[in-house]
Amino acid sequence: VSLRDEIGEQPDVVRRLLERARGTAAAVASEARARDVPFVLIAARGTSDHAAVYAQYALGVLAGVPVALAAPSVVSRYAAHPDLRRALVIGISQSGRSPDIVSVVAEAESQGCLTLAITNDPASPLAEAASAVLPLDAGPERAVAATKTYTAELVAVALLAAALADGPIGTEAREALDRVPAALALALETEQAARDAVAVLGDADECVVLGRGYHLATALEWALKLQELAQVRAHPWSTADFRHGPVASLPEGGTVLAVRAAGPLAGDVTELLESLRRERGARVLLLDDPSAGIPEPGVTRIPVPGGLPEWLSPIPAIVPAQLLCLHLTIARGLDPDAPRGLSKVTLTR
Amino acid sequence: VSLRDEIGEQPDVVRRLLERARGTAAAVASEARARDVPFVLIAARGTSDHAAVYAQYALGVLAGVPVALAAPSVVSRYAAHPDLRRALVIGISQSGRSPDIVSVVAEAESQGCLTLAITNDPASPLAEAASAVLPLDAGPERAVAATKTYTAELVAVALLAAALADGPIGTEAREALDRVPAALALALETEQAARDAVAVLGDADECVVLGRGYHLATALEWALKLQELAQVRAHPWSTADFRHGPVASLPEGGTVLAVRAAGPLAGDVTELLESLRRERGARVLLLDDPSAGIPEPGVTRIPVPGGLPEWLSPIPAIVPAQLLCLHLTIARGLDPDAPRGLSKVTLTR
Repeated sequence: VSLRDEIGEQPDVVRRLLERARGTAAAVASEARARDVPFVLIAARGTSDHAAVYAQYALGVLAGVPVALAAPSVVSRYAAHPDLRRALVIGISQSGRSPDIVSVVAEAESQGCLTLAITNDPASPLAEAASAVLPLDAGPERAVAATKTYTAELVAVALLAAALADGPIGTEAREALDRVPAALALALETEQAARDAVAVLGDADECVVLGRGYHLATALEWALKLQELAQVRAHPWSTADFRHGPVASLPEGGTVLAVRAAGPLAGDVTELLESLRRERGARVLLLDDPSAGIPEPGVTRIPVPGGLPEWLSPIPAIVPAQLLCLHLTIARGLDPDAPRGLSKVTLTR
Repeated sequence: VSLRDEIGEQPDVVRRLLERARGTAAAVASEARARDVPFVLIAARGTSDHAAVYAQYALGVLAGVPVALAAPSVVSRYAAHPDLRRALVIGISQSGRSPDIVSVVAEAESQGCLTLAITNDPASPLAEAASAVLPLDAGPERAVAATKTYTAELVAVALLAAALADGPIGTEAREALDRVPAALALALETEQAARDAVAVLGDADECVVLGRGYHLATALEWALKLQELAQVRAHPWSTADFRHGPVASLPEGGTVLAVRAAGPLAGDVTELLESLRRERGARVLLLDDPSAGIPEPGVTRIPVPGGLPEWLSPIPAIVPAQLLCLHLTIARGLDPDAPRGLSKVTLTR
């Protein structure tokens, strides 16, 4: 099994997860409603943390639930006992084995709070620690760089957001989820466009990766894959945060990757890209919804098909990003299945 | 007034703030206790967001209060109404004028929730929107790169954490705060060491900046100053997150800046630096507490004096980082008072 195979498995993984996990998501949402939880706290690292960032938007916008991303060392290293009794506490981890993530969920569980593990290993310490488990059922992920477990984590979060959303918004959200596997299958067809787009990076060994709103998660995950696989120093930013300082360090002719969906933030991304092209001569590669705006001259685009609502668009959008990283890695003579200095399970305390 | 003058004003700014703001911090803490708020939500961008990251640790560890960092666009752009009624919602902004930050506080206020503005402009829209205001009283900050308002924001957060902490921990915390101005005065004496340390960067135009726990905020803020002032592409990471992937993209002989305090996480930073030196030949510059460990061979250190407890150490620790950025900027022929492409007030929506 290779990274490329696992990228290709994503439609099936998500189809299976949608069939199996709806019940768990509904049960957790129902218990959260019964307890009237005022907020959700999520502990996660690396790729799983990007699914947590997605949850800030999906749960916040669809279900009106504020989401806190845990600083795990508050519990794991400073041995503090933050009052989590009223929260829904979620740990997200492919392996379910990182001690700092387990410690946050175990602390919450010891306070009697509602806890959920989202993991690919239902026998892991994380799953053991939590009162509810949503198994990703993605099959073994052998490549060091996570791909299919990331999309599965996004879908798990989306299922929970849809289950927590009230009224017609919830009904519509649950229906839209059924269209995700087909959108993923279409996204796999961007492979040739992604391979061609490798040329935009040339021999650049660094770049910035911009997104906002729902696609902040995509920018973070795209940058991480570039770092892990292709050894590109990719700096991810929300377009809003980028304007608050980091923009000053973009070199003339620097490489800018960006992702944009049709929605209230499309204009924000477009504006920033235009000014970076005009004022800094940036080389721009844009992943976007074909309906998000007119193509700018000089911008290489990879269209992300799918026709999904904005809140679900990060699920197919990561696929061309994964494919680009795969082909960039191969083009640079590196092995996508054996990234330098990394192992599959990272045990941080 | 120049950046350098504003760096030098920090002991006085903090002394004044400690005198004036204790009452406000105590009143907000008392109201938060009366309402039994289950969590704090903070909206901030740029430098102020780093003070919010500090708050995750200070409020979490000292006072056991979970802190969520807001994704402002959930409210400002997706027009969602997350249920904030039970939260304490804090906006942190030097200018008090960024519309996205104001929108989060205004939304919270409209829900009848307890709100606090931490700002240098008590007549700003942010201050107008909030029910309580903690003015930084730092005097006008004219340099584009924030320095004295960052330390003032840290102190405002520390005052709130100390006011929320119960029993002897709270009493000790409030006493320790009185030692901060003297520690800042001592930190200014690192200027020669900071100027000498410019040599570690050589002509590097990128680097990573590592910290963890309380000093994740320091790493983030140090990196932002390097980006804004010296046009260095500085990538900040928590040491734990760095191990989960980005480590793969560190080039041989790459430049690594790090910050470390005496405390439970000192060993984590030390271990990572040692492996980066051994396996990647990294050039390392370390800001640290002289008592945090023995000096490693080949590591340039800037000692951060002060004798403060770990939770307050980020306040003096940023000073040598600011001074290093100032001298690096001058050494590269750039103007520290006019960074490229930035203006003092960034209005993100």
